[in-house]
Amino acid sequence: MTDKFYITLGESPTAAIIVIGNEILSGRTKDENINYIAKELNALGIRLCEVRVIPDLEKAIINTVNEMKVNFHYIFTTGGIGPTHDDITAESIAKAFGSYLVRNEEAFLKMNEYYQGNMNEGRLKMTKMPEGAEIIANPISIAPGFKIGNVYVFAGIPNVMRAMFDNIKHSLKGGAPILSKELKVYCSESKIAAPLTQLQEMYPVVEIGSYPFVKDNKLGVSIALRSTRQDMIDIVYNEMKEIFKDFENPEKK
Amino acid sequence: MTDKFYITLGESPTAAIIVIGNEILSGRTKDENINYIAKELNALGIRLCEVRVIPDLEKAIINTVNEMKVNFHYIFTTGGIGPTHDDITAESIAKAFGSYLVRNEEAFLKMNEYYQGNMNEGRLKMTKMPEGAEIIANPISIAPGFKIGNVYVFAGIPNVMRAMFDNIKHSLKGGAPILSKELKVYCSESKIAAPLTQLQEMYPVVEIGSYPFVKDNKLGVSIALRSTRQDMIDIVYNEMKEIFKDFENPEKK
Repeated sequence: MTDKFYITLGESPTAAIIVIGNEILSGRTKDENINYIAKELNALGIRLCEVRVIPDLEKAIINTVNEMKVNFHYIFTTGGIGPTHDDITAESIAKAFGSYLVRNEEAFLKMNEYYQGNMNEGRLKMTKMPEGAEIIANPISIAPGFKIGNVYVFAGIPNVMRAMFDNIKHSLKGGAPILSKELKVYCSESKIAAPLTQLQEMYPVVEIGSYPFVKDNKLGVSIALRSTRQDMIDIVYNEMKEIFKDFENPEKK
Repeated sequence: MTDKFYITLGESPTAAIIVIGNEILSGRTKDENINYIAKELNALGIRLCEVRVIPDLEKAIINTVNEMKVNFHYIFTTGGIGPTHDDITAESIAKAFGSYLVRNEEAFLKMNEYYQGNMNEGRLKMTKMPEGAEIIANPISIAPGFKIGNVYVFAGIPNVMRAMFDNIKHSLKGGAPILSKELKVYCSESKIAAPLTQLQEMYPVVEIGSYPFVKDNKLGVSIALRSTRQDMIDIVYNEMKEIFKDFENPEKK
């Protein structure tokens, strides 16, 4: 599934996100993590190829992790590593790796110090990880995430997830940063479809996306260019500006 | 994958969403549709079991649709049905169903009337659907979505997607509405983990989710109850209020 996911972005390493959370599927909570990770990965030159949102259910977690970890360079999971009964991510990922869930001594020491020896059952649960996992430090609420194989296990709470991502991002091997530039034109999308197709065929190294919008009751299209090559983005951008010059001003439409 | 996705929600029909869009994976656009559909499905008594976000790539669309359409009662796709080169959803779904992409006469007539016969190539593209598909009317921007088998194909633009969903929701066969109620307590999640586990074991018909938050520098937990049974939600809620009465007031913490 990973070959030629984009016509343009060449040899960038690939990634997928697994959002583990009944609260997203039930509509209780709006996910905030996908967009954050997606943007960070652009800068790192890693291509986000797929996201799955799955329930807090052992079988779903095991199947999804096992299916995805062989298809992408990096897997990031969010959610399900807290102290309560519905937090089953660590145990399920241990099973996905055919590993045991054991107390991680480094995690235990950090939490035991922070809680001054007052380790209740819930806190002890958060020190348990698959055997051989490396912890991902959590400066916000201490209980760490972990990495096993190519799977990075983050908390679901956005500020904790971000702090954990910050802690590991230097260790990810990316490619050239993925750059983007947009041109806004004011007309209906169908009017520019044919020249855009020609441009895309002429410049396969730049991925051209077309996203209609309505602003102040005026119909427009954002044309988004995406590539690892700034020079090629500029060439396509300038050609577009010339081709669509009659549509650049909303008043002239 | 669909059996026992939740311990609690019994025999509700199941659904999955496929978000088709490079713009979500690139971080350019934050998805707004998953949360909307999730909430609507609760009211309809349909359980959202999985979401996948995939790129505008034929192979990804075909594989994902074919894998998911046999696992869930309803599949909703968003995105990729516009007039430009990157809109390949209709063609890819035709291939997933082993069907041909043909002009839908009803779609053509609607669009031709709206555009007063001025049908350019991009507009004609939007009249093409898998053979045998039924159109889903689009009161906002006319170009319709469609349904084939158990797959409902919506636009990606949120207000258009919503209008399309509104047009088909009466035709979905749901179960009992999925209800929810939340209790906020002010303490760390690990303190309430043990009693919550006991409650979950005692009342399997109510799904209990635990979601920590920080408000005004105070640590709290939202305990979310979810079930088709209002009576059981109320019983668990009242038991929780009693068990956690010391934590209900943020000042008393």
